[in-house]
Amino acid sequence: MTGTEYYHVDGEVVPADEAAVSVRDRGFMYGDAVFETIRAYGGQLFEWEAHAERLQDSAGALGFESALPPAQQLRGRVRETLEANGYTEAYVRLSVTRGVQPGKLTPGAADPTVVVVVSELPRGGQDGEPVWDRPAVLETVTARRPPGSVLPPAAKTHNYLPGILARLELEDADEALVRTVDGYVAEGASSNIWFLDDGTVHTPATELAVLPGITRAVVFDLIEETEFQAREGRYTPADVREADEVFCTNSTWELRPVRAVDGHEIPQGSVTERLRQLYDRRVERLY
Amino acid sequence: MTGTEYYHVDGEVVPADEAAVSVRDRGFMYGDAVFETIRAYGGQLFEWEAHAERLQDSAGALGFESALPPAQQLRGRVRETLEANGYTEAYVRLSVTRGVQPGKLTPGAADPTVVVVVSELPRGGQDGEPVWDRPAVLETVTARRPPGSVLPPAAKTHNYLPGILARLELEDADEALVRTVDGYVAEGASSNIWFLDDGTVHTPATELAVLPGITRAVVFDLIEETEFQAREGRYTPADVREADEVFCTNSTWELRPVRAVDGHEIPQGSVTERLRQLYDRRVERLY
Repeated sequence: MTGTEYYHVDGEVVPADEAAVSVRDRGFMYGDAVFETIRAYGGQLFEWEAHAERLQDSAGALGFESALPPAQQLRGRVRETLEANGYTEAYVRLSVTRGVQPGKLTPGAADPTVVVVVSELPRGGQDGEPVWDRPAVLETVTARRPPGSVLPPAAKTHNYLPGILARLELEDADEALVRTVDGYVAEGASSNIWFLDDGTVHTPATELAVLPGITRAVVFDLIEETEFQAREGRYTPADVREADEVFCTNSTWELRPVRAVDGHEIPQGSVTERLRQLYDRRVERLY
Repeated sequence: MTGTEYYHVDGEVVPADEAAVSVRDRGFMYGDAVFETIRAYGGQLFEWEAHAERLQDSAGALGFESALPPAQQLRGRVRETLEANGYTEAYVRLSVTRGVQPGKLTPGAADPTVVVVVSELPRGGQDGEPVWDRPAVLETVTARRPPGSVLPPAAKTHNYLPGILARLELEDADEALVRTVDGYVAEGASSNIWFLDDGTVHTPATELAVLPGITRAVVFDLIEETEFQAREGRYTPADVREADEVFCTNSTWELRPVRAVDGHEIPQGSVTERLRQLYDRRVERLY
């Protein structure tokens, strides 16, 4: 980035320093907003349709799906923001709030505020460096994933304190291993967790209040291109600690290998590497 | 209110229309912020010390207590805001976020943004009308109160979606009766719940993930001035439905009688009325 960076707020491209939302916006007052984190590769939004669909599901879970601007318009705003900055490789955070409303907790008709925040993020890919600087160290934390009766697990919202509290517990680790209230492995604070055991690639089932990650869905696709099996299930931290390989996924990290879980060293293996290469290929088909 | 209303943002009194926080403020991005709702009566902040203490506890639960501006300074900002508007009777929302930080989920050193939003709110009191227009109708909802392992129950934060989801379930009701994940009555979406049974005034115990309301503490004090007993315990919605009297409390409503719970009519009785009078007297001692 050189010079001023630009964001997109409520229909306008604005300099980052002036990009702000009203203090009466419910997105600020209550975290009453949904978001997506998207990668742009070669100017293309990776898995846009899946992100747009999940954003709609998130807004649906909060009851303002019908007020969500059309996906086409949202994509237009993201593109305008990338163009204003001249970015082709970028991290994009697209948020939609329920909007400004009279000071009541019970929502009235939504009047969404759309916010696009971007930052340049060159991708590693087949010839480059990943965005993370080392394989991750995972640590099991006491903070639990909200059960479905508290927050709809498929909704990606601005109520992100449970993930922050999980990260705050970490000492020398990069990512938290967060359990359900029943003690099963759910996910990381900002990633999905996978492990290899005896030739099968395991990840917690979405019925365990797990966010259905977009990268997670891509990895399921990629596993089908290999001789390995994928399996969703219920696992304990011990299952992850004793695994043959472990990795985390999210849109920013893509596939990030794990080198230790709760102090147990995890072998750096070929299956994670193979899936990373397939992921790179999938991304690089785009442009 | 006549003309422009003023708020207070990051150290400055600003017109309400210009009162905004950066889209990179963690208060907006993640609901990573704490708040208090306070009443001003005759220009005095009711129970300021208790609110300031809980705000500190809330920030402590999120790990940024040490960065919180001193209570004296926060009170100064609230007073400046009230004075800028010429308000003596008002609703005040004081928020403190962790501030703007680089785009990472894991918090760095906090650089709090302080926001004060006010609106004029004449109080009822002994000679006036309450802020609510009728005794409340309560309805038990499916949305549950976050357990302590998910969000610290004593922290009042901008992660308020569980309360919003509870309110969204209501049809003709004013307030939700929200249970713990184990099925016990916890609280309303924005109030504490009380009921009278056989001469004892009951309210759910704070060990049930209940927010320790400031008004709740005042009501415990007031009950000591009467011949009635107060008791904290574990209750089911049926206990509330079958009660002799039911009321809700929060800073805005003060004591609000309940006239129905899940379609069961609740008698309008003298104990609630007596406590309301004692509350009025407590407030009116201020000025």
